[in-house]
Amino acid sequence: MSHGVVPTQVARRTRLGLAPIARRAARLGISANVVTLAGGGLTIIGAGLLAAGMPLGALVVLALGTLADTLDGQIAKAAGGGTTFGAFLDSTIDRVSDSALFVGTALLAVTTAQAALLWWALVALVVSLLVPYVRAKAESLGASATVGPAPREGRIVIFLLGLAAWAFFGLFLAFVAAVLVVALLATVTLVIRVVHVGRQLSTKGR
Amino acid sequence: MSHGVVPTQVARRTRLGLAPIARRAARLGISANVVTLAGGGLTIIGAGLLAAGMPLGALVVLALGTLADTLDGQIAKAAGGGTTFGAFLDSTIDRVSDSALFVGTALLAVTTAQAALLWWALVALVVSLLVPYVRAKAESLGASATVGPAPREGRIVIFLLGLAAWAFFGLFLAFVAAVLVVALLATVTLVIRVVHVGRQLSTKGR
Repeated sequence: MSHGVVPTQVARRTRLGLAPIARRAARLGISANVVTLAGGGLTIIGAGLLAAGMPLGALVVLALGTLADTLDGQIAKAAGGGTTFGAFLDSTIDRVSDSALFVGTALLAVTTAQAALLWWALVALVVSLLVPYVRAKAESLGASATVGPAPREGRIVIFLLGLAAWAFFGLFLAFVAAVLVVALLATVTLVIRVVHVGRQLSTKGR
Repeated sequence: MSHGVVPTQVARRTRLGLAPIARRAARLGISANVVTLAGGGLTIIGAGLLAAGMPLGALVVLALGTLADTLDGQIAKAAGGGTTFGAFLDSTIDRVSDSALFVGTALLAVTTAQAALLWWALVALVVSLLVPYVRAKAESLGASATVGPAPREGRIVIFLLGLAAWAFFGLFLAFVAAVLVVALLATVTLVIRVVHVGRQLSTKGR
């Protein structure tokens, strides 16, 4: 969306940069679904490194996982279009990845006794799962719910920027702030979506 | 489902017992959506009491919240059938309630330094949200995903039984075990659903 938090330019350029890799992978017969699963696996490992208090390792692995997550759709496209099963798998693994990210953050908060970080991590965890749930539920009822100021890629970029500030400059508070911003943006998106769907469905009646 | 964890009889009798209350509420003009919101509110308060380490208070308030949650659908039926918006609101509040339950459990685990309980609570939190997500996503793609050994009401009954064992007999470990069972049952349901949907969608092709 053009009014998203992450400039559309950055997202478009990343996709353009990945395009040759995606075409090569598709020619080599690497399936989009395998890349989806690899991206999910990398994110879980990165979340584990985060929970263990290793910000630099976490940043590198999570950035690779995020790239794999962008690459899978492009490989599917280069291979002649994605399957419905691929779309389902990709969406489900996205939810698992987001969960891993914030479970890792919550565990880090517990081991470092950061009460505020624990709260924001739990809010971000729950709301990051509720936002796509509301969309899927709305779509299963014949409504649409793609509105909101912070699409998933925007939330992940903010999270990774906060993590980078911690990894490179020791600014742990910048990471806490990033998790807070992600939690707030996701909550705003959730409220906007519920109201948006509510309006569509209440005019629809029974 | 007849093969569910909670005997179907118990669920049916509870619904029968609530039927006169639902009819009276409908006649008084109490809307199903208000009862849905009240049920969600009660569950959040109950989860707060749980996080504060007050099992008896939590049990009473959570049981009331669960009753309200069963009542809303009956009121909608008694009032001549539910609306699509009511179904959307009910589903969304169910997810918020489940989240509150396991966030409350996780916070309790942190304040009482119960590492195992923290793990099971986080697994139960994530998977309880993934199970309905997978269903809604599958339905939005034209597949169905209502399979699994532990429907939501079964998971809540197990949770409340564990909480009752702690509240009345001081058996904190029974509560920990209940959360573990809920986490495992939800995980089994998730895996079964993903495989079930995967099979439907891969035969569908593109």
